[in-house]
Amino acid sequence: MEIHVMWNDYPKLKKELEKTLDLMSSSISLPNKDIENTIIEMFHSGGKLLRPAYLLLFSKLAKQPDSKKSIALAAAMETLHTATLIHDDIIDEADLRRGVTTLQTKFDKDVAVYSGDYLFIVCFKLLVQYTDSLRSIKLNTASMEKVLLGELGQMDTRYHMDITVDEYIQNISGKTAELFALSCFLGYFENGGSKKVAANCREIGKSIGLAFQIVDDILDYSQDTVSIGKPVLEDVKQGVYSLPLICALKENKAYFEPLLSKKEQMTDEDAIKVHEGVVQFKGVEKAYELADYYTEEALRLIQSLPDNKAHTKDTIYEITKNILTRQN
Amino acid sequence: MEIHVMWNDYPKLKKELEKTLDLMSSSISLPNKDIENTIIEMFHSGGKLLRPAYLLLFSKLAKQPDSKKSIALAAAMETLHTATLIHDDIIDEADLRRGVTTLQTKFDKDVAVYSGDYLFIVCFKLLVQYTDSLRSIKLNTASMEKVLLGELGQMDTRYHMDITVDEYIQNISGKTAELFALSCFLGYFENGGSKKVAANCREIGKSIGLAFQIVDDILDYSQDTVSIGKPVLEDVKQGVYSLPLICALKENKAYFEPLLSKKEQMTDEDAIKVHEGVVQFKGVEKAYELADYYTEEALRLIQSLPDNKAHTKDTIYEITKNILTRQN
Repeated sequence: MEIHVMWNDYPKLKKELEKTLDLMSSSISLPNKDIENTIIEMFHSGGKLLRPAYLLLFSKLAKQPDSKKSIALAAAMETLHTATLIHDDIIDEADLRRGVTTLQTKFDKDVAVYSGDYLFIVCFKLLVQYTDSLRSIKLNTASMEKVLLGELGQMDTRYHMDITVDEYIQNISGKTAELFALSCFLGYFENGGSKKVAANCREIGKSIGLAFQIVDDILDYSQDTVSIGKPVLEDVKQGVYSLPLICALKENKAYFEPLLSKKEQMTDEDAIKVHEGVVQFKGVEKAYELADYYTEEALRLIQSLPDNKAHTKDTIYEITKNILTRQN
Repeated sequence: MEIHVMWNDYPKLKKELEKTLDLMSSSISLPNKDIENTIIEMFHSGGKLLRPAYLLLFSKLAKQPDSKKSIALAAAMETLHTATLIHDDIIDEADLRRGVTTLQTKFDKDVAVYSGDYLFIVCFKLLVQYTDSLRSIKLNTASMEKVLLGELGQMDTRYHMDITVDEYIQNISGKTAELFALSCFLGYFENGGSKKVAANCREIGKSIGLAFQIVDDILDYSQDTVSIGKPVLEDVKQGVYSLPLICALKENKAYFEPLLSKKEQMTDEDAIKVHEGVVQFKGVEKAYELADYYTEEALRLIQSLPDNKAHTKDTIYEITKNILTRQN
């Protein structure tokens, strides 16, 4: 499968993303080649590769970008992301991910558990092979901890109709934004960038990650009622209430309460009513306000980056704007 | 719950093991206190704590044992071990572990997946907090990789009636022996021990781990037929054939074939027949031969350790002998 079309306008970056996927593939070696091939297929299944892309982009902002090392770090980030996806799929009992049969469907739950674990380790393996900075390893460890606390926090607020915007932001800060933050930080810092600017890169990544996740959650509700498919239906059934629903709930709890209180027993009709309510009670609109806030924050911080690599800075700005204002 | 009675004769070590458990408990912090408490309960549920015990014992062989650091490394090893147990329990769908309700039974599968992941990270967190040796982190990463390849390898040889002794040894080398090896290595090396002797410590740990797992697998078959409980029955049903069965299979495949080919559909009566066959066709006897081989190898290597800490060396010898010749 090709690299996602969104990178077609950036041929050099696209090339590096291809190398990143190649390195990921060559970093795994399992006794069972069927499982190995399924994981490799998953790597190549056409994800947006945003985390490695940001790592590579921020590496070019630094004075002495080391392409080989940056590709390895980018591979570590995407491997970590894939590990979390595999474990998410176990929990969601998902059959397909990006059109590819998931590991626990093709093989078994146990293969998915251990394969995810294995990819966590491959991430560390890539990191320790290519960096001699204990600081970076510590930061990676701290980030992974936040990712998992975000996942555990999300479970913890399941079916909470009074979940606050702050709690939601805290969950997605871990679950999504942390890896964006780490990618931007590592790309710059590991290529000789200063700690001070690297801290800004971290903040940029965090804002991008938050805006990205909110936009993702909004898009689930922006489809036609007819096509509300699995994702939003499943999430709501499983008690994962994202920002548009949280905002709409604040507006009119009485409308949603009888629907949401059915929990797993919610019917497709109920789900359509939830969807309609979210739009009707301005959940999508309100959520867009917060997405815009983080998008502007990200873009403002990008503009404040040092000017010595103006071209790269412009590219980061442009890509970020495109991603965060996408319509699908 | 108290520390396992086996450590009563070693009050200083027992004290350090208590501190190890305390550090493990204070290293985790989850948004959901119920989950946190269940994990802490699991830490304190009376396991033998062999990996941290060996780490602490081997630390005392080194010239400048740093008790605080060794306890942290010991905590990292036991946390890692607990992470693998939590994920094993998901796969086995076990309700109880050491008499304590498992995470996925008390909460849900998703809690167990993410909690195990979280403990993997806590292991790294403890390591990077207390060591500044990239070499140790690299070794830890390599060991974790071997542990998971062992787990994946074991799955891969499931229901293989022609599984060889070599394949079994390879699986338990990863699954069990690797963490023993790493514990012995880190205890010595991280306290200023030489690389050369540390490599011997690694070998000792590996032999101990292999012998320990074989004895464990033998003990499953050494109970009365009446009391063959879950463990061996479940493992055989799930296609995990351990050494006594592998040896007996070589002796008389025709006896086992009709029983094992039923796979998950095996009845309790079938399992009793498997058990009887393993004893009748000398599976237990043969397995003991290999356990003895690794036990003697471990004891021989322990004796070859430098003599400057004769007391510690004797203690390691004594404890190892007791563990590897235990009857239950």
